[in-house]
Amino acid sequence: MAKHKILIIGFGTVGQGFYELFHEKQVSIGLEDTVVSEVIDAKFGFIKNFGPDIITQLKGGKTFEKADVFKTIRNSEADIVCEFTWVNIKDGEPAFSHIEEALSAGKHVITTNKGPIALRYERLHELAAESKLKLRFKGTVMSGTPSFNILELLPGIHVQKVRGIFNGTSNFILTEMAHGKSFDEVLRLAQSMGYAEADPTLDVDGFDAALKAVIFSKVIGWTKHDLNSMDIKGIRDISSSDASAGVKLLASMDSESASVKPVHLSPDDLFSNINGVMNAAEITTDTLGKIFVAGPGAGRKETAQAVLSDLVEVINN
Amino acid sequence: MAKHKILIIGFGTVGQGFYELFHEKQVSIGLEDTVVSEVIDAKFGFIKNFGPDIITQLKGGKTFEKADVFKTIRNSEADIVCEFTWVNIKDGEPAFSHIEEALSAGKHVITTNKGPIALRYERLHELAAESKLKLRFKGTVMSGTPSFNILELLPGIHVQKVRGIFNGTSNFILTEMAHGKSFDEVLRLAQSMGYAEADPTLDVDGFDAALKAVIFSKVIGWTKHDLNSMDIKGIRDISSSDASAGVKLLASMDSESASVKPVHLSPDDLFSNINGVMNAAEITTDTLGKIFVAGPGAGRKETAQAVLSDLVEVINN
Repeated sequence: MAKHKILIIGFGTVGQGFYELFHEKQVSIGLEDTVVSEVIDAKFGFIKNFGPDIITQLKGGKTFEKADVFKTIRNSEADIVCEFTWVNIKDGEPAFSHIEEALSAGKHVITTNKGPIALRYERLHELAAESKLKLRFKGTVMSGTPSFNILELLPGIHVQKVRGIFNGTSNFILTEMAHGKSFDEVLRLAQSMGYAEADPTLDVDGFDAALKAVIFSKVIGWTKHDLNSMDIKGIRDISSSDASAGVKLLASMDSESASVKPVHLSPDDLFSNINGVMNAAEITTDTLGKIFVAGPGAGRKETAQAVLSDLVEVINN
Repeated sequence: MAKHKILIIGFGTVGQGFYELFHEKQVSIGLEDTVVSEVIDAKFGFIKNFGPDIITQLKGGKTFEKADVFKTIRNSEADIVCEFTWVNIKDGEPAFSHIEEALSAGKHVITTNKGPIALRYERLHELAAESKLKLRFKGTVMSGTPSFNILELLPGIHVQKVRGIFNGTSNFILTEMAHGKSFDEVLRLAQSMGYAEADPTLDVDGFDAALKAVIFSKVIGWTKHDLNSMDIKGIRDISSSDASAGVKLLASMDSESASVKPVHLSPDDLFSNINGVMNAAEITTDTLGKIFVAGPGAGRKETAQAVLSDLVEVINN
């Protein structure tokens, strides 16, 4: 019998990517006894008792009967719910309610959805703590690349400041603009490569980076920052000559303030070498001074790694 | 009564630095019940039943009776031994025997000493595993800056390659030489600043970086690399023009081979911006591609943070 069961809500790129990576790695991480037992998705319906070829079946056009998500969560045998639905920066819905329902039903939650964590973390954190449940969301900031979770390796450390390049799309645009291209030209390129959405406002106007800055801050305990209080400015006014002179879209937070805005960096700043869709964070601390970490900030397998890291933490600790 | 007791072997910069940081942080990391119960040091003697002002007393010239280290380990009430004696790259002694004795006596071991881990890890690892004891050595590579232990955050990941700037002294020398100074001039400067030893061969001939490359490799499971099999070349032949053209002393390892040698880096390589005494590692993986981490590689408080991280891991997991 399965020791742990997982319900996946949202079976798009992230959900399928996690499903595949989980099956590729489950023996090597000692989770032979854990299964993905149920999947619910707005397009595919409610899937239970499925074989390992489920993704192939879905690609072939197979769909299943629809079901109510909240009823599915309540009735699920799973002890771990993975929330992978779309990001909504107005109120975090429907992901917020999915997570609230799962925690209320006594299930651990892993999510890659920035909305509910950035907008309504306190309520979810409290709900999880009351029931001694885990709420993990590594994938919300820099996908699987260690970001705020690096602090788990550094007990006792006091964080004084964080800076970050948290949005790969805008960093890709600035990198290409530094070679002389125009904003509009590179935006179309990014859209054709799948880096940017048809409506690019989340990325290029700084909101996606701001959500991540808020989430990183909440993990540290800087609870006062939110999208309303933050100073947020995107890259639409940046010229190619600004970009080639070293302007990057940088998030910057400490206990008192938080911002996302284009900043002119000196060439010896490590951030000035963060190019393309790469992300990076610099954490200033009392015992180590500045530590710096960089890596991919998005991607199917990269985000799946984040979920896998959270899953092992939920199960083993 | 104390829940955990620590015996410190070697009470120089690392030992005293750890002692101070432990007392500064022990409440915030939930280790109020843990005490440093005994200290043994070649210069100061064997110290037991001491107050928080012990470092002040030692600075004032106080010494204690000498005692046999091995007998002290065997008879110690401590369940955790911290080994902080000097590095010996010939056979890892006396640290190796201290650690062997401690593990044989049923005590967990934390060390910052590269010798025994790089030279004779297999024996110590086996001894610890047999008795279900912990052997932790984060401080041996990049002090408290996350390095190989970042892999603890990445379950299931497959490491394909590692590159690193692991020796702050030689990187400092190359950074200064890039501004036109000669090797001899900068070496004297580094010695006057306390970055380099009177005999600088460990640092400038690549051996210190090689020890760290071997340790990093062993953690990954690349067990075949050792100082004899590695291609090791230092920075004595590097000119100022090489340095200003972007030459860095780089360790490079994969499952088959390992080397430390001066490498000419392209300006967009993140390592090319690692200046002064900073250290950095780049880990190439299957799920994340390249991740990069940088920070201090040495220092009193920085190394103490490494020991504190290991201590919390030993006690909590």
